[in-house]
Parts: sequence; structure tokens; C-alpha cells
Amino acid sequence: MTPTDRRFMQLALALAGRGLGSVWPNPAVGCVLVREGRIVGRGWTQPGGRPHAEVRALQQAGDEARGATAYVTLEPCAHYGKTPPCASALIAAGVARVVSAMEDPDPRVHGGGHQMLRDAGIAVSVGVMESEARALQAGFLTRITSGRPWISLKLATSFDGRIATASGESQWISGPQARAHVHALRARFDAVMVGGGTARADDPLLTVRSFTPLHQPLRVVASQGLDLPRGRLAGSLGQAPLWLLHGPDAPEEARSYWAGQGAEVIGVPLSDGQLDLRAAMAELGARGLTRVFCEGGGAFGAGLLRAGLVDELIGFTAGVGLGSEGRPGLGALQLAHLSDAPRFDLIESRVIGGDLFHRWRRQIHA
Amino acid sequence: MTPTDRRFMQLALALAGRGLGSVWPNPAVGCVLVREGRIVGRGWTQPGGRPHAEVRALQQAGDEARGATAYVTLEPCAHYGKTPPCASALIAAGVARVVSAMEDPDPRVHGGGHQMLRDAGIAVSVGVMESEARALQAGFLTRITSGRPWISLKLATSFDGRIATASGESQWISGPQARAHVHALRARFDAVMVGGGTARADDPLLTVRSFTPLHQPLRVVASQGLDLPRGRLAGSLGQAPLWLLHGPDAPEEARSYWAGQGAEVIGVPLSDGQLDLRAAMAELGARGLTRVFCEGGGAFGAGLLRAGLVDELIGFTAGVGLGSEGRPGLGALQLAHLSDAPRFDLIESRVIGGDLFHRWRRQIHA
Repeated sequence: MTPTDRRFMQLALALAGRGLGSVWPNPAVGCVLVREGRIVGRGWTQPGGRPHAEVRALQQAGDEARGATAYVTLEPCAHYGKTPPCASALIAAGVARVVSAMEDPDPRVHGGGHQMLRDAGIAVSVGVMESEARALQAGFLTRITSGRPWISLKLATSFDGRIATASGESQWISGPQARAHVHALRARFDAVMVGGGTARADDPLLTVRSFTPLHQPLRVVASQGLDLPRGRLAGSLGQAPLWLLHGPDAPEEARSYWAGQGAEVIGVPLSDGQLDLRAAMAELGARGLTRVFCEGGGAFGAGLLRAGLVDELIGFTAGVGLGSEGRPGLGALQLAHLSDAPRFDLIESRVIGGDLFHRWRRQIHA
Repeated sequence: MTPTDRRFMQLALALAGRGLGSVWPNPAVGCVLVREGRIVGRGWTQPGGRPHAEVRALQQAGDEARGATAYVTLEPCAHYGKTPPCASALIAAGVARVVSAMEDPDPRVHGGGHQMLRDAGIAVSVGVMESEARALQAGFLTRITSGRPWISLKLATSFDGRIATASGESQWISGPQARAHVHALRARFDAVMVGGGTARADDPLLTVRSFTPLHQPLRVVASQGLDLPRGRLAGSLGQAPLWLLHGPDAPEEARSYWAGQGAEVIGVPLSDGQLDLRAAMAELGARGLTRVFCEGGGAFGAGLLRAGLVDELIGFTAGVGLGSEGRPGLGALQLAHLSDAPRFDLIESRVIGGDLFHRWRRQIHA
């Protein structure tokens, strides 16, 4: 891998990031075409998943694609879907070399794209900035390999880990910049999800509101009994889709009501008397979701951690103390030993307004 | 204030910082002597508080002090103590100009040092980098103006604000680098302090151990009933002094035992049935302590916050979740409203090992 290869792949990754949240069930891919050291085409997966990044970059390059090097953040597809495969398009355009960050684990591709290119006499380098590409495309990869979306859990708390006073006061623990940042984060996810407790307590809209986003993420609420307030959430079906996960005993009346409002109502089995969150996430994966941003409450977050479903943890720590009688940001984890506790590695931290933002990734054990 | 003045004052502040923890009840002061753009003397308050920074810098400069500019982080003293005042020494050495960060609020000085210099025909500029000097010298300043030491509270917790599992397991929540950093922090304080709960649970040594420090800070334990374990704490009196704050009902046997071991045993009144922490801190201030590093536990930390005694909060957040049944890092704050919650401003944050280090300063209301 040359420094030049890294530089153009970095750009392709930055372009790929633009698609996050709006391309599911497709991967958010980036592509840069370089001819004689000059960028002749740039593309990223478009909203809804089509056109693919390579096609956009080739359209932009036109005849200049001939003899160029294509930098792609994921192996070009090799299968005929609604359009011909990207590998064929790259061949037809006369690209001389393809630098790919990683093989696509999708069984419909899985090396076939790279092979198709090599068979056509194109030089192919695989593995340039692979770990960065894996991190960026974790949503798509997790869905392909585990059948569930990649899950980010947000915890916005006081410096002692609380989200409300004993009496339930919780407004303005985080500052305005942190709250605006949460809206920006939501827009990079396929869906925003909360548990029934938060839905009942806050009747939240769960939409992106601090700016006008390219798309509104789906809203998902997991509520065993579907006993949700019929206010703002019900009144906002026109703003963004709403999926409701419920248990087998949710009343027929509630199911009919929400279906009648236009929500998608999805039954999920129970496990230990609670919604089976692994089954719930598998349902979301089966429906194509690749990136889900979970915003609490404490019981739902703890359930996700207990089930080993949290891939990323996003913390906002405010400079305020609420004390041990305040409501905890995270519910019970039922740990028998400290060694059983879920562990995460710090990825980044920075100041946002007056709050501390920190991001952690699930620790992978060998 | 010229950029040159700022640059030399910055250096004087860095030198001043070397004295933190070892000069109480004196302020940790720094002094730089500059002649024709060249540094001819550097000094800082020496362990035990003498010699003063100015005297050290003048000794180093010798004849070159004549016509030089002296940068001092605090007004030179004007009163005769064990040694003649620093203002006289600067005059005698023929210094031409004095740049001072701030006036010394100590009633024995309080502008008298600056006046003495001016009366001798020396040009005096006051207020260069004053806010930085106030932050660095906050320990001395708080003791002079409030009669108590400046108090830093450490909270080393899981990302959900817990310090142990429900069964009490707490080893290695923070990583080794964070623990080493705590030892380095201790060395910059006059005293390390814990509540009786932590002393009973951990029987901690409270000494600086990850490196060989210039001095061992005092150890202070606040325990109403003096019902402390008689193990490591009692056996380590040779390593560092130990002060024990107790309530009026502490048994005579316990007081005699600890006094016999060489600990200083200090009675403190109660308030609402608990040790009156304001009175306790006033006792420490009266004995000369300027900087106290409080390490918990949760009840002691909450008591300090409730009493409005926490000037700085130091957080170490580990990438581990313990859940709501874990032991909270902070006890009950008894807040009636969210608006009553103690608030802090973020000063810095960085990664230390695998943990997130963050430092907050008490929010000052106008």
C-alpha cells in the first residue's frame, strides 16, 4: 500500500460516510477514480441505495475513466440486481486498476467482484485501509454476518451517571450543543430506537429537528405491551415511519390502533418475561436495517448490554451531579462477577458545548 | 501586557507549579529574572515554604539581577517573618521592574509588597496572566479568603457512574495508567483525604507509590466514630502523617489508640447527625492545609458536594458497565430540584491508558 493509495482511499471513505443512514439495506460505499494523479470521478451510494458509488464516479469521469485507478471502500458487486453489476461497469469503462478496502462478505459477492475484475485483466489490490473500512461499514457488515443491525447506545448523563432527579426532572441536563449533536447523530443512522419506558415517560418525537436532514431515520419503539401514549408519537406518522416491536400478549386493540395509524407493528417473542432483544434485532435486520441508534431508557440500554448487543457506546457527560437518589442512566446488568461486565475501548472524546462527548467500541475478545 | 511579558510569566507559573503540595501553608510561587531578554534567574518556593521563589531567583542571578525585570506569580511579601521580605530583597538587588500576576490577598501583604517596590522607584505591572495565576494558586487563595483548603474530588467510575459491583468487587475498574496518574495527582496536593466508609472498606495506605515523590502528602480520614481498621493505615504512620477527624462521640479508647500510634486526632462538631464537613475543612485550613485531594467514597463525596465544598472534580471514566445494582460513585445529594444541582465547567479531558480523564471546575454564579 503506497501513501498515495492511502490518501485516495481516505477520500473514498469520507465519501462513503455521506451515505450512512440513508442507503439501507445497502452498504454506504465510496469510490474515487484517479487518472495520472488527478481525480476524474467521485461517487457514493445514493439515498435508497442506488445508484452505487462506482456508477456515480464512472458517470462523472466519462471517457477519462479509461486507464484510471478506482478506489472503492468495498468490493464492487458482481451480481445482477436492478442494474448490471459494478464490476462489469468498471470493466466496460476500461479502468486499469482497482484498489479495494475489503472483500464484501455478502454471499452474492464474496470475492466474485474482485475475481471478475482480475479475469478481465484489471490489477486488483485488496485490503487498503481495511480496518477503517470495516469500522465505517460496520452496519452493513454486521447485518450480513450476524443478521442484525449494528447497534449504538447513547448515554447522556450527569457526571455521576444519572438521567433525572428522584422526582423525575430531566430537562437540560446536557447542554444545547450536545442536544443538537444528538440530532446530527440520528441522521447518520437507519433508525432511532427507544424502549417502552422512555416512550411512556417522554412521548418523544424521535425525529431529526436541529437541522433539515437528507432523510428522517425510521423510529422504532420496543414495548412489550404496546401501552404507549397516543400523543406526539401517534401524531407524527407523516414525519417519519414508526415501527413498534411488541410481545405476544400485547392487546389486539393496541395492535389495531397503531397499525391503523400507519405504524408497522411487529411481534417478537419473550425471553425471561421480557421482549427478547436478540429476536427483536433479528427482526430489524431481516427488514434491512443496518445501523440503529438506541437512546434508552435505562432498562432498555441494560437489556441490550446484557444481551451483548451493544457495538458502540456514545456518552455525553454533563457537569452536574444528581446524587444516588437520581434515576440511573443504565438499569440492572445482573453481573455475577466484575469479570462478566461488558467492556469497551475508548475511540474518541471531545468537548461539545459544556459537555464531554465520548465514544467507545465493544471490546473484542480473541 | 506584551507577548514577552506573557511568555516569561508563563514560565514563572510553570516553575510555581513545582511547589504544589509541598509548600503549605505558603503559596507555591514562581519567579523569573530577565535582563536584556536573557533569563538570569529562576526560582520557586522550596519544600516547606522557604526559601521563597524570589530569593532563589536572586541567588541564582547574583549581580546580574541589577536592572533586571522580575516576573512573579504573586505579589512579593512585605512582612518580616523568619526572613526579610522579598520586596526588600528585590529592591536591594537593584531590580528595575517587577511584573506581578496578582496582588496577595493575605492581610499581611495585600498591596504592601507592590507599594514597597513602587516607593523604591521600581516600575510595577500587576495583573499579567492573573486568571491563570489564580487557578494555579487557588489552594493558597482559598485558604486566605475562605479559611479552608481548596478541595478536589476524584470520581473514578464505570461509564454508568459505579465504583463496585453489588457484591463489592471493585478492583481494576480503572486501568493501570489511570491508577498511576492518581498517584501523580496525590503528590501535587498537601493532603489526601477519604471518608470513614472507604477507610473501613479498603484500609487504604493513601500514599504516593507509583514513583518516588518529593514528599508524601498528609493523609486525612474523616470518621465520625473513629471505628477504623487498625491494619495498614495504623502500620504506615512512618510513611506519611495521618490526621483523623472524628465526631464528639468517638470513644475515648479509639482516640487514645490512634494518638498513641502517632496520628493527629481532631474533634469536629456534628451537623444533622453527620460530621460537619465545613467545620472539618475549617480545621484543616486552620492547620495550614491549602490543597486537599478527596478520593471518596460516595457518601463523603456527596457530603462535600452538598456542603458546597468541591472546587474541582476529577473524573476517570472506564470503559466498563456495572449496572444500576452496582455501588454508586456518589451518594445522595438530597436535591429538591434539578436547578439546585451542583454544576461544574469542563476544564480539560484526555485519554489516560484506556480510561477517560476529565477535570471540571465549580461553576461560579455571579
